[in-house]
Amino acid sequence: LTSGFAEASEQGAANQARLKDIAKEAGMRIVGPNCLGYFNPKNNIYATFSTSFTHGMPKVGNVGMVSQSGAFGSHCFVLAREKGIGFSYWVTTGNEVDVDVAECIAFMSQDPGTDVICAYIEGCKDGARLEEALRLAYEARKPVLIQKVGRSEVGTAAAASHTASLTGADQVYDAVFERYNAFRCRTVDELIDITHAASNGVLPKGRNVAVGSISGGAAVMMADAATEAGLEMEPLSDGAQKKLKELIPFAGTRNPVDFTAMVYNDLSLITKNFNVILGEGKYDAIVGFFAFLAYSEGLSESIIEHLKPIRNKYPDALIIMSVTGPKHVLDKFEEAGFPCIAEPYRALEVVGALATIEEGFQKGLPDISGLPEAPKLALGKYNEIEAKAILAEAGVPSAEEKLTNSADDAAAAASKIGYPVVMKIVSPDILHKTEIGGVALGLTDDETVKSAYSEIMERAKTAYPDAKINGVMVGKMISNGTEMIVGVQSDPVFGPVVMAGLGGIFTEALKDVTFKRAPFGKREALEMIDRLKGAAILRGARGMAKADVNAVAEAIARLSVFAAKNTDVLNSIDINPLLVLPEGKGAMALDGLITTK
Amino acid sequence: LTSGFAEASEQGAANQARLKDIAKEAGMRIVGPNCLGYFNPKNNIYATFSTSFTHGMPKVGNVGMVSQSGAFGSHCFVLAREKGIGFSYWVTTGNEVDVDVAECIAFMSQDPGTDVICAYIEGCKDGARLEEALRLAYEARKPVLIQKVGRSEVGTAAAASHTASLTGADQVYDAVFERYNAFRCRTVDELIDITHAASNGVLPKGRNVAVGSISGGAAVMMADAATEAGLEMEPLSDGAQKKLKELIPFAGTRNPVDFTAMVYNDLSLITKNFNVILGEGKYDAIVGFFAFLAYSEGLSESIIEHLKPIRNKYPDALIIMSVTGPKHVLDKFEEAGFPCIAEPYRALEVVGALATIEEGFQKGLPDISGLPEAPKLALGKYNEIEAKAILAEAGVPSAEEKLTNSADDAAAAASKIGYPVVMKIVSPDILHKTEIGGVALGLTDDETVKSAYSEIMERAKTAYPDAKINGVMVGKMISNGTEMIVGVQSDPVFGPVVMAGLGGIFTEALKDVTFKRAPFGKREALEMIDRLKGAAILRGARGMAKADVNAVAEAIARLSVFAAKNTDVLNSIDINPLLVLPEGKGAMALDGLITTK
Repeated sequence: LTSGFAEASEQGAANQARLKDIAKEAGMRIVGPNCLGYFNPKNNIYATFSTSFTHGMPKVGNVGMVSQSGAFGSHCFVLAREKGIGFSYWVTTGNEVDVDVAECIAFMSQDPGTDVICAYIEGCKDGARLEEALRLAYEARKPVLIQKVGRSEVGTAAAASHTASLTGADQVYDAVFERYNAFRCRTVDELIDITHAASNGVLPKGRNVAVGSISGGAAVMMADAATEAGLEMEPLSDGAQKKLKELIPFAGTRNPVDFTAMVYNDLSLITKNFNVILGEGKYDAIVGFFAFLAYSEGLSESIIEHLKPIRNKYPDALIIMSVTGPKHVLDKFEEAGFPCIAEPYRALEVVGALATIEEGFQKGLPDISGLPEAPKLALGKYNEIEAKAILAEAGVPSAEEKLTNSADDAAAAASKIGYPVVMKIVSPDILHKTEIGGVALGLTDDETVKSAYSEIMERAKTAYPDAKINGVMVGKMISNGTEMIVGVQSDPVFGPVVMAGLGGIFTEALKDVTFKRAPFGKREALEMIDRLKGAAILRGARGMAKADVNAVAEAIARLSVFAAKNTDVLNSIDINPLLVLPEGKGAMALDGLITTK
Repeated sequence: LTSGFAEASEQGAANQARLKDIAKEAGMRIVGPNCLGYFNPKNNIYATFSTSFTHGMPKVGNVGMVSQSGAFGSHCFVLAREKGIGFSYWVTTGNEVDVDVAECIAFMSQDPGTDVICAYIEGCKDGARLEEALRLAYEARKPVLIQKVGRSEVGTAAAASHTASLTGADQVYDAVFERYNAFRCRTVDELIDITHAASNGVLPKGRNVAVGSISGGAAVMMADAATEAGLEMEPLSDGAQKKLKELIPFAGTRNPVDFTAMVYNDLSLITKNFNVILGEGKYDAIVGFFAFLAYSEGLSESIIEHLKPIRNKYPDALIIMSVTGPKHVLDKFEEAGFPCIAEPYRALEVVGALATIEEGFQKGLPDISGLPEAPKLALGKYNEIEAKAILAEAGVPSAEEKLTNSADDAAAAASKIGYPVVMKIVSPDILHKTEIGGVALGLTDDETVKSAYSEIMERAKTAYPDAKINGVMVGKMISNGTEMIVGVQSDPVFGPVVMAGLGGIFTEALKDVTFKRAPFGKREALEMIDRLKGAAILRGARGMAKADVNAVAEAIARLSVFAAKNTDVLNSIDINPLLVLPEGKGAMALDGLITTK
């Protein structure tokens, strides 16, 4: 538990290493050091000096919580306890000389007493272990809620100094979490609220939500919240709306349903309203707004009695009560199977999060079985022509082109390929061809090709006197398409991650790019494309021709398989631009760069 | 208080109108109907049947709260009471037959007992009244926090059915709130948390914030939150960091400051740490994270004693405690001048909101005194040439052009203007010129100009046999610039609102546009431009030439003055595109459309 190890000094790090060796020799496992220990309320084990218990012991339940930070873990425990969340295990891992967050997640994934896993991490040293743990949780269909801090630059700097660990790029964590359906939370409240609702056991089967409210104003706000949370709010059928109007003549009946405070005058109206709404059979979740109802204990008890038949009749529907009041009254709602979330906006956010988690489980992990085998990459330096040949073999085609070694040779190649052509210097030592004048575009006849050859060679030799020059490439000039940028970066912690974006200003000024952990299939590649803010451009905005999105998706998926197969040697791939031609015409790399480790 | 009026039926609306007449005749004011009344705890007046008091009476304080919705207003009152917020007035206005939200805001702006105004609205029928009320609050330097629902389509539909009032476009509300520095909140918790912190009376003078935390993990998270809230976290000076290291050797000292739970062993370390940080003189706010400290009443009391000297020594610094525990302990922090916000992420969001509010007060209202007088617009139909002439007079120049009435005339004009030219049909009855082939671009000699003239006339007459045709415009073809779209829409509730965006896909596919309520000055026009996601393109991204942003800002500001002067007749202005030339070269309307009421 004690601090003063690797987080503090070099001497501390040495002590920590010794501790590790001694424990290993003795066959003993260590949690920590520099942590707050763990507890297991079922077996009454409290190996912690956290002061958080002095104000209330944990309840036994189905949530496993693991935190790298002791203080933060204790804080989460207190907040969770206040929401009535029960625990299977609670562990803080600190410097992780032995037991780490990944091992705890893996353990909880296999623990029959844990249904929901709640994790706080600052950084991860062994990506493969974390991925394996998340995969186990996925296969056990256990929602994993993660708060990973260090999203901003100043945050990342603070995290590095706090944990003294290599943390990897933040977007890569996003890509890894997304792959295994782990839901990343931004705030502590979000972490606790989603964990709390998930521990109730009902995940909405789809995104169609109904809202019932005693306040018309709250109903409108919740409709806004539903839209922002990516939920649908289909209107009730005419028949159902008519029934609701018969029950309460001045109710709003479309969805959101504003059943007004009238329901307090005749509680059976609550049962009837919920019955009509859920009886539609199309809503995956319903949120009921009852303001500060829980301050009235007696009324709350009566309402719970009127809601119980609904809970029993529609066991698959997520029913959330947006209600506030003292904890002991809220607990009664919880015990009857109605998670309580005071903030109506948040209630809809939680429904959205749970729907996303369920969607991830329904979808299955990425499947690459339909894609052809990828070639093996050797260590080395590749010029553009070599790189594009490898990429073509891997599944990313390029335009017709030829390496030439004299001006005449170039002109002959150009005539054969057909004008207009482009020409580029080819050298494994010259990465920025445009900057040195090593590229000529839109050449339309033999003469200009010949003089371009001489000029390009001249400029290259001047700029890089020592570069190995293979010659000048002559290729078909193709311009009728949309430019994308596709790349691969090998993350030191997690391995290859694929990036895709639209070219030019979209990537550079608007930062409109998406990432996924390799390898993945065509379905995931399509997701990447559709997540771009500028996806409409590829899909045919403004009367532009629809781009061959299908071909791009195929190319990106195969690139991911290639990258994953060559994790051992691959450093990066940069395809800029990948030209996407109109529908049915394909996509091709107009430039390609591969670097190895 | 009773319902069954305009919100329910036609008969109800008739009754409501009668009620209004009777009251007016008798010189009596009405709050409601269809509301929950009002209260004024100072004078012990509780003209309401809300059940919210049965669980705790309101405290007298400096917050005025007004809500169109009774149920929602009661809910907000309960949440506010739980945060320890005290009230000057609380009013629900319902159907607003007489007293409306605007009048309440105006009243509270002038009420010496109210320092902060908290409002909930669903829609507004009289924009000018609301604007006047917000202006009064601005001039009194009273923060106004507003929750306006109906952001989404389904929400707007629900709001319309709930209040039976014309609500105006949601972005227009944003533009109006922004103009008068009213801060729009998305969620109820946000509304209450910001109101709560603002009622403490200290607004941060700038955006530089320090974080001190007993948990390194929370410190990292708060750094992320600060970045996302648009706050700066300048590092401490080396000298200050050295002092902190001397106090606690394993502390994180850069900012965020992780003073670790060590401070609980020697509480004077808290005073010392805060003194070193605020002694830097550069931080406008500090957030201290102490997790669940408030569960220990004795320790909390001691810490408050150790914090009091800091509160007295730095009266201008906003000091927020991120701490959770029972209300009666939190109240002690509050009474000592430390607003408590449990969620650390939210604490930084609140600091960001208060900094934005203070910035708005420092900035002053839009000032148009430096801009020339705008011309008066007459009702009528304007063709493109007329519209552009008016716009030029109003301050938005256009390219050289001439109206021609024969093919020879057109060729002569083109020679005079200089090739290449563009030609367009001119008619007040043909708004979509491109669609009917009424536009020809890039014409380079007399012959093509002559044949283009005949073709354009032919096509226009075929498409619109009854249109009044003024002739064909010949203009200079200009292409070396960036296209923007600038427009004005006259909102039925609030009047003219100016829209600006980048042309083409930016506006259509990415919805990258900004709005401001007219009139405003050049400073506000520059804000509009810089808020565009694609602003980097105008500012010279990717080695492109910097556009003449200055000229655009001048044009947009003058357009806003023109629009505001002609509120009585103007319906809309559409300048698409406004071509922005490279720096120093200006901006010009390549097309212009004005419609009147």
